[in-house]
Amino acid sequence: MLEIVGYSKGHWGIPNIKERLNLGGIVEVTPKTMEESVAGNGLLHRRIFLAQAGALLGVGTIGMLDSGAVQAQNIQGRPPWMLAPGKGVGAYGTRARFEAHVQRAAGSAPGMTGSGASRTPLQHLQGIITPNSLHFERHHSGIPEINPDEHRFLIHGLVDRPLVFDMDMLSRYPMISKIHFIECSGNSRVAGLIDEPVDQNCGVLHGLVSCSEWTGVPLSILLDEAGVDPDAGWILAEGSDAAAMSRSVPMAKAMDDAMIAIYQNGERLRPDNGYPMRLFLPGFEGNTSVKWLRRIKVTAEPTMTRDETSKYTDLMADGTSLMFTYPMAVKSVITSPSPGLDLNEPGVYEISGLAWSGGGRISRVEVSADGGLTWGEAALSGPVLDRALTRFRMAWRWNGAPAVIMSRAIDDTGAIQPTRDSIIAEKGMNFAYHYNGIQLWAIDAEGRAVNTYA
Amino acid sequence: MLEIVGYSKGHWGIPNIKERLNLGGIVEVTPKTMEESVAGNGLLHRRIFLAQAGALLGVGTIGMLDSGAVQAQNIQGRPPWMLAPGKGVGAYGTRARFEAHVQRAAGSAPGMTGSGASRTPLQHLQGIITPNSLHFERHHSGIPEINPDEHRFLIHGLVDRPLVFDMDMLSRYPMISKIHFIECSGNSRVAGLIDEPVDQNCGVLHGLVSCSEWTGVPLSILLDEAGVDPDAGWILAEGSDAAAMSRSVPMAKAMDDAMIAIYQNGERLRPDNGYPMRLFLPGFEGNTSVKWLRRIKVTAEPTMTRDETSKYTDLMADGTSLMFTYPMAVKSVITSPSPGLDLNEPGVYEISGLAWSGGGRISRVEVSADGGLTWGEAALSGPVLDRALTRFRMAWRWNGAPAVIMSRAIDDTGAIQPTRDSIIAEKGMNFAYHYNGIQLWAIDAEGRAVNTYA
Repeated sequence: MLEIVGYSKGHWGIPNIKERLNLGGIVEVTPKTMEESVAGNGLLHRRIFLAQAGALLGVGTIGMLDSGAVQAQNIQGRPPWMLAPGKGVGAYGTRARFEAHVQRAAGSAPGMTGSGASRTPLQHLQGIITPNSLHFERHHSGIPEINPDEHRFLIHGLVDRPLVFDMDMLSRYPMISKIHFIECSGNSRVAGLIDEPVDQNCGVLHGLVSCSEWTGVPLSILLDEAGVDPDAGWILAEGSDAAAMSRSVPMAKAMDDAMIAIYQNGERLRPDNGYPMRLFLPGFEGNTSVKWLRRIKVTAEPTMTRDETSKYTDLMADGTSLMFTYPMAVKSVITSPSPGLDLNEPGVYEISGLAWSGGGRISRVEVSADGGLTWGEAALSGPVLDRALTRFRMAWRWNGAPAVIMSRAIDDTGAIQPTRDSIIAEKGMNFAYHYNGIQLWAIDAEGRAVNTYA
Repeated sequence: MLEIVGYSKGHWGIPNIKERLNLGGIVEVTPKTMEESVAGNGLLHRRIFLAQAGALLGVGTIGMLDSGAVQAQNIQGRPPWMLAPGKGVGAYGTRARFEAHVQRAAGSAPGMTGSGASRTPLQHLQGIITPNSLHFERHHSGIPEINPDEHRFLIHGLVDRPLVFDMDMLSRYPMISKIHFIECSGNSRVAGLIDEPVDQNCGVLHGLVSCSEWTGVPLSILLDEAGVDPDAGWILAEGSDAAAMSRSVPMAKAMDDAMIAIYQNGERLRPDNGYPMRLFLPGFEGNTSVKWLRRIKVTAEPTMTRDETSKYTDLMADGTSLMFTYPMAVKSVITSPSPGLDLNEPGVYEISGLAWSGGGRISRVEVSADGGLTWGEAALSGPVLDRALTRFRMAWRWNGAPAVIMSRAIDDTGAIQPTRDSIIAEKGMNFAYHYNGIQLWAIDAEGRAVNTYA
């Protein structure tokens, strides 16, 4: 007789349904209480997905089978790829050829060699981690090809001891690992600061944001080792690209959570993200996390580099300018449904999206399916991390009529994502950075989603 | 006059040193208290890395500069890659050519087409996320090339309604995202169950484990929709590879945290990890997370498939066998220093490694540098997640003499990673799976690390 030793029913006992879906409260699942509305026009409590009646997505749509069909699917229906052994193991893997359409949307600035950006296809991704091959890019003069053995990193200026590091030496310092988003300050500008709504997909409109696990050496340790002058208030960080891209950063940030990042999602940085090393400033606008970092100069005041005077300053409607506006504001966007991801037919769908804030952790995301009249609270899919992309999810029964869906995020400082109208009323339309207005998708009667302002 | 609006010193104030390095207690940093021993043979409190005396790694080694040298490094020393614009943006990125040596160690079984494994090069990675291109592989008959539009997934057996899903329909169900490791049950066998220590690197010895963010549909929802018979106690999961790899899984696990995974680290699964869909069972031995999943049959008893009778059963010294030993045991390994990552010279280094357990969260990792006589507690680098790889770090002053270093992990169930000797005393050496003995690295006087048993 078989005695099963390794499996203990007690240890792996069936949890209650609440734990299974990580819902907010105790759930009593009965067919009668399944479809509980949480806001107008079909927003439902996620317990709808616990339906036991076989009718969740509509029998027939899923494909209920008789026993003959089960046999056919099971035995005779072996697909061609089961009939011969497949490809063997490999040294460095690649994705399926059927996924080749999932690409960054890449564009270059006319007449400016190497200047351009590519955007993460947010609508095709899930979870919170961005694969390195699909991380957004923003280059001011292209991607330098740096030999790590020849690369040096200098700390100088208002320090007791100027220091220079090669990669081997830097790698001996203690490291930290953090999952954080990085967002270009110009992200979402085309989603809200153009007169008419731009007919593009979610990645093109909002894809200058990505999220990775970054590993590197805390900058504070290296600055301590160099010995910072008490008069120092700022650092200058300079990249080793042809533009020598340079930004000033307050010393307080440099000594707080700044990192010299060497690894991204486990492996060494990619060239398009600063190989072999970059500055990484959690929550700050992306360009300050200077890529291909070659030196940090400790200074008393900001250096007023070309990159922070000709760019990255926002002209307000009253004629004043905002400068050194480092933290990225609280924002969210529904990634599905969104333009290009059409609804096939009326029925239940999961609304899914991303929220993030340079100010801290996302505490709440609300979703509306009736153009902002009523809002329901979305479920946050863990882990919910400080200054990381946060996945939210919401159940929706689309009735087949035109609808306008949107999300708004709230962070743990209490900051609330504003509407486009309120931003323009406050700041005008002359600025180009830090736009974080609520994104509306209009769904038409055919189930197609488009960017809309109302 | 410039008025800085966007930057508030109060908000981004300098934190205390404790927060910077996430140490366990308040730290008073003075040169006198820096080098605090926490265990024998040079294991140090991590506050050593907060040294302010410029002598942490030895002045000269780092490269202290005079002002002329700073000028040379800063201005005249512009490297060739700064002299012309670099490559522009791209649709799907690749890694630096200088990193091409970071590869999975791939091996195939002689005479068994498509059967083999490739191992994650743990010693070259940092943090906890494994890039998809370097995730370990284990195939029983190669990687099928599956067209997702033609793939179907069947649920049948002891259910009210057999159901079949295509990818579009499956994607309409609610999803969850979780960061979890997956480990082949045969991982580390070559590190401990061979008579003499195998002279290989960390990835070859222990690299059948990787960690990703997995996103997919909870299996419990689909089983609820099919309507599980009260007599059902198990499921059979079958892959769509040429081996039709099949395993039995208790219903309790299927209804607990089992997932039909569709995404891995944000993008669709890679073919070598089950594209377009796999079963994912957090904490269970890897082969039960059946790849290329084509059907789940609900059954009363385990099916006793070829894969769970000819394999994945452990013969004990007393002649009994362990079967259905699903959860992977608590384990850890030092990834640096390790074979191939030599120490250049006596001095301070960071010992870094990975710990994990199929039983839950890692609660503590201890490190010894004197062959197990004394142990110091390592710092855990967050996030520390349930059944995920966990990065640990420890400061070590290597004095240049031969040393034996090792780590042992403890999880939140209280399980402690055992020594090789205690495992062999209990189980013998006839088994091949679930070996989790403490890994010793012997460092010789030249700083080279090798696998050792004592």
